Amino acid sequence: MGKRHKKKAKGKSSKEAKHRRASAAPPRVIEQVPTADGRSVETKIAEPIGGFTEALRIDKGFSLAGLDPSSTPGFDGAKKDGRRVLAAAMDEFTDLTERLYAASTAGSRQGVLLVVQGMDTAGKGGIMNHVVSINPQNVQATAFKAPTKEELSHDFLWRIEKALPATGQLGVFDRSHYEDVLIVRVLDLVPEREWSTRYAQINAFERKVARSGTRIIKVMLHISKDEQRARLRERLERPDKYYKYTPGDVDARERWDDYMEAYQAVLDKCSTVGAPWHVVPANRKWYARLAVQQLLLEALRDMDLKWPAADFDIETEKARLAAS
Amino acid sequence: MGKRHKKKAKGKSSKEAKHRRASAAPPRVIEQVPTADGRSVETKIAEPIGGFTEALRIDKGFSLAGLDPSSTPGFDGAKKDGRRVLAAAMDEFTDLTERLYAASTAGSRQGVLLVVQGMDTAGKGGIMNHVVSINPQNVQATAFKAPTKEELSHDFLWRIEKALPATGQLGVFDRSHYEDVLIVRVLDLVPEREWSTRYAQINAFERKVARSGTRIIKVMLHISKDEQRARLRERLERPDKYYKYTPGDVDARERWDDYMEAYQAVLDKCSTVGAPWHVVPANRKWYARLAVQQLLLEALRDMDLKWPAADFDIETEKARLAAS
Repeated sequence: MGKRHKKKAKGKSSKEAKHRRASAAPPRVIEQVPTADGRSVETKIAEPIGGFTEALRIDKGFSLAGLDPSSTPGFDGAKKDGRRVLAAAMDEFTDLTERLYAASTAGSRQGVLLVVQGMDTAGKGGIMNHVVSINPQNVQATAFKAPTKEELSHDFLWRIEKALPATGQLGVFDRSHYEDVLIVRVLDLVPEREWSTRYAQINAFERKVARSGTRIIKVMLHISKDEQRARLRERLERPDKYYKYTPGDVDARERWDDYMEAYQAVLDKCSTVGAPWHVVPANRKWYARLAVQQLLLEALRDMDLKWPAADFDIETEKARLAAS
Repeated sequence: MGKRHKKKAKGKSSKEAKHRRASAAPPRVIEQVPTADGRSVETKIAEPIGGFTEALRIDKGFSLAGLDPSSTPGFDGAKKDGRRVLAAAMDEFTDLTERLYAASTAGSRQGVLLVVQGMDTAGKGGIMNHVVSINPQNVQATAFKAPTKEELSHDFLWRIEKALPATGQLGVFDRSHYEDVLIVRVLDLVPEREWSTRYAQINAFERKVARSGTRIIKVMLHISKDEQRARLRERLERPDKYYKYTPGDVDARERWDDYMEAYQAVLDKCSTVGAPWHVVPANRKWYARLAVQQLLLEALRDMDLKWPAADFDIETEKARLAAS
């Protein structure tokens, strides 16, 4: 079991306590955000909670089987607190993604890529609906389905490369190239000698992407097999959920242990310094959404995004405008 | 001046009164939404205000010069009321766009395309940030900038065609093919004999799109020249707005009347039954956002979107799931 997850589960250290103080909605604070030309801009932000990245990033030796999918690492509040923090942080999240975009107009090559994986019903759709529902010009979401004939005629990373976010964008992958070592491995869709070389290919690919300026945040939403049954049951009971169900979902359940083994292999082999994996316990939907939002926020804050300087003479333009 | 705008400006008829009752936040109501297989689903919706489409769709003979950009046709509430209604209607908007997507998974060919035009600072970005910030997998937004060399080597509709939303999606155009009869006409970027034939081309193109199942909603955000000066001034005063300003914005102001003439020509020639134009007074940002949201809602409601029926045997699947 990963050290960080274990520590969180116990929650005894003083460092822990710091991360867990946010059980109530954080107050709004006004921050003076510096701009590239030395000025500053007032921005309302929710007081950062912090610590989700550290709490959820997996360590060497992490074991999926040892993680409680109902736990809430890094947060000791209840559901209503979590929802409040999520809502309160939307302004800052929107602001940071806008700064990311603005920086790109001034030549920055930075971008962010969120990769979301998880078993059926793990809550990937909820991330789309409740976390990354921002200005659609600042986010580029791709759902990877079974590959088309054309996609299959190329290397498995071909369609991934095409979906990489443009500079200044938040890219979101709902499933990803990891399916090529998950379902493909479990169902033997290609021979082992082929899928077994893909882990190294993926690491090289992600290194290239990270070096080009894109911050990669990989998230596995982790639910229990029982929780999945309850969620699939709901899809069979609510006519507005039928379209999300396919009989294949139960087939996949029957290979649950194989999938967990394939996920464990991904975590063991593809969590790198430049593109670490985070495992988010996802039996509680509110927690999973909060955690993914906070992972994104922590990454965006760390990028130290500044509003670009004016590339024109401000006083000249004010005079021209006044005369127009 | 357009009859509908004129009527709204006076606001005397009883029909008017019906459209204007929503000055307070509408209460939430529970609606039984029918599904394709005859069942129904409970959905929380805000009580519809209604009437924006009728209030804002232009009539034959409409004159842009006669419309007050500070008016609020179809709504007599104040700013705080408008914001409350906007927020209250987000759930229904999200629900309807999800139903649009769900229907496409069951073979529906329906989609929606929102075309947003307006002078610089008219509030196009605010529509992206405050109206269509939904699940990014259900919305496909494209900002049309100056065409690239490759785009210029094709017909002007080539890049538009490529950006059309997939079935089940809400497409959003921030600027559009109309630039090819707006800036292109004002700045003589192609000879008149070329741009003058484009209106008919556009009408034929949009007819084709509408016939394929895509509901087209075209919106011009209309601000006054004074309001534009104030908004550009703000961009010159706030370091977090510099990146939105270019000296060319003042150049365009100097051709304001020519632009209004070009917009008038668009409204005269390209408002068709299948793809009508709506002119939204946009000096009040809160009103413009509310109006565009309500135009989308009215169109989506009118499409009578149903959750698809199950394409599997529900009882069989429940049994399989229980055993898994």
